[in-house]
Amino acid sequence: MLVAGQHFFPATDPYRLGRKSLAVNLSDLAACAAVPRYALLALALPEADEPWLAAFSDGFWSLADAWDVELIGGDTTRGPLTISVTIMGEVDAQHALRRDAARDGDALWLSGCTGEAALGLACLQDSDPAGEWAGALSAALTVAQRQQCLQRLEDPTPRVLLGQRLRGVANSAIDISDGLLADLDHVLQASGLRAEIELSQLPCAPALQQLNDQALQRRYLLSGGDDYELLFTAAPSMTSRIQGIADALQLPLTRIGTLVQAVGDQVGLIRLHEADGSLFHPQHRGFDHFGFDHSAVTRDQGEKRE
Amino acid sequence: MLVAGQHFFPATDPYRLGRKSLAVNLSDLAACAAVPRYALLALALPEADEPWLAAFSDGFWSLADAWDVELIGGDTTRGPLTISVTIMGEVDAQHALRRDAARDGDALWLSGCTGEAALGLACLQDSDPAGEWAGALSAALTVAQRQQCLQRLEDPTPRVLLGQRLRGVANSAIDISDGLLADLDHVLQASGLRAEIELSQLPCAPALQQLNDQALQRRYLLSGGDDYELLFTAAPSMTSRIQGIADALQLPLTRIGTLVQAVGDQVGLIRLHEADGSLFHPQHRGFDHFGFDHSAVTRDQGEKRE
Repeated sequence: MLVAGQHFFPATDPYRLGRKSLAVNLSDLAACAAVPRYALLALALPEADEPWLAAFSDGFWSLADAWDVELIGGDTTRGPLTISVTIMGEVDAQHALRRDAARDGDALWLSGCTGEAALGLACLQDSDPAGEWAGALSAALTVAQRQQCLQRLEDPTPRVLLGQRLRGVANSAIDISDGLLADLDHVLQASGLRAEIELSQLPCAPALQQLNDQALQRRYLLSGGDDYELLFTAAPSMTSRIQGIADALQLPLTRIGTLVQAVGDQVGLIRLHEADGSLFHPQHRGFDHFGFDHSAVTRDQGEKRE
Repeated sequence: MLVAGQHFFPATDPYRLGRKSLAVNLSDLAACAAVPRYALLALALPEADEPWLAAFSDGFWSLADAWDVELIGGDTTRGPLTISVTIMGEVDAQHALRRDAARDGDALWLSGCTGEAALGLACLQDSDPAGEWAGALSAALTVAQRQQCLQRLEDPTPRVLLGQRLRGVANSAIDISDGLLADLDHVLQASGLRAEIELSQLPCAPALQQLNDQALQRRYLLSGGDDYELLFTAAPSMTSRIQGIADALQLPLTRIGTLVQAVGDQVGLIRLHEADGSLFHPQHRGFDHFGFDHSAVTRDQGEKRE
């Protein structure tokens, strides 16, 4: 369920919003290794705005057609702008990827990279002269970088083919919507494991590098949210097969850590290793569903700048 | 999708709201003759109100358990109070009841009676001293009648068993959510037919009779909405089987009219016959999704009282 003012700005381009409302659901199916089949769309609109609805529908259908998804039902009603999509897909029960099937010793893999969508959200807030960014990002990033970040935020690419290719290869998977650490936590809790992550292995997009602020980079990489990349685990013996999938899909797949057996309160523990062997302790583990708290980010910045 | 302020008052008893949010979906399955199986629930809440959520869940589950419906997914997020339920059921393709399969000469049948829910809504508005009813209904109805109408509005009974019993008996069916005439129109348009209705055959609940105002009664009976009764069509030869189903379910099933072949702009025509053979022309055909317009009702009343 996507709610205006919570999950997107009311003025968001409706074509992109139509795409994203289906994309985030396709991403859930991707994480299950399922083939998308059917969708239902329930829409509440403050008024019957024909041009908005036409653009939204065009966006929704552009992605539905691309993935051969049939719209089999739904609802339209008056109300605060709210989008609720239900999606159904198919996968053999024995091939379905789950959160609770990661194993001790599994390598932890990440598709693409994280953090650009959260930076895209910051770019949208940047133009507010009274806001916390107050134009600082416009100065720091190139136009192309800002557009790339906005595209990641507003028009994410669900990793549908990757999910299907991981059948019989990965032991578990999840898509990253709440941030890398928060979604990894779901896998660890469900599988009763803990994780060791090598920070130097985390892929970092050019726009994030450009910020030239390691604390901020890591905040976006680890806790940004809205990434819709797949985080999956597989036996180390699967490494060459996974590299083959990366080549075939022309999609970077990076091993970023290892999962380890855990007991008691160690379940869910995530240790973040610096290149020098020391541990990094993030201030914020997950994405706050009730709004991204930028105050902590800018406080970090401020301290560094002082 | 049920939106606070549009489909229900924000202060509605959350237990009943939980039941209704599933009931209106069960009613859709009933109209297809399907067996309920799975549901998904997406909820937007302005704040994390634990007692409200507990009562809502109790209500939802009371009906889910009664019909053996499994909750297989959903979402909870912050936003204006909005409830979006997706339901799935099973029925053999050849036994599914559809809107587009009514036939020339079919008898038109109605389960239970219509109008009480709309009168229940009016009762809720009645207590507002500045409102259009301003207490008139409290004077007209007994306490038991008001409670019956409120129950029909807030805790409707989906006709799930009836739908299933109509397999192989009815040719088409629809559930009445927008009012008898509006939902009959969906069947007529889909099946290319027109209808003849005998007004004297329409079952009229005691509370509606008590109003002692025929124009108002008919407004509620024909266009009230939120009834969740089944309107179905069957060959006249099925009459005794249908009466047997009514006996078995202890649910009144009333033949209220006949469907007739139509061409061109006669498709969708509904003729409402008075007992004396004259025709009745209703002012309002359907329920307005964007709020029940009581001004017309009270104008009717006013004219009669003058």
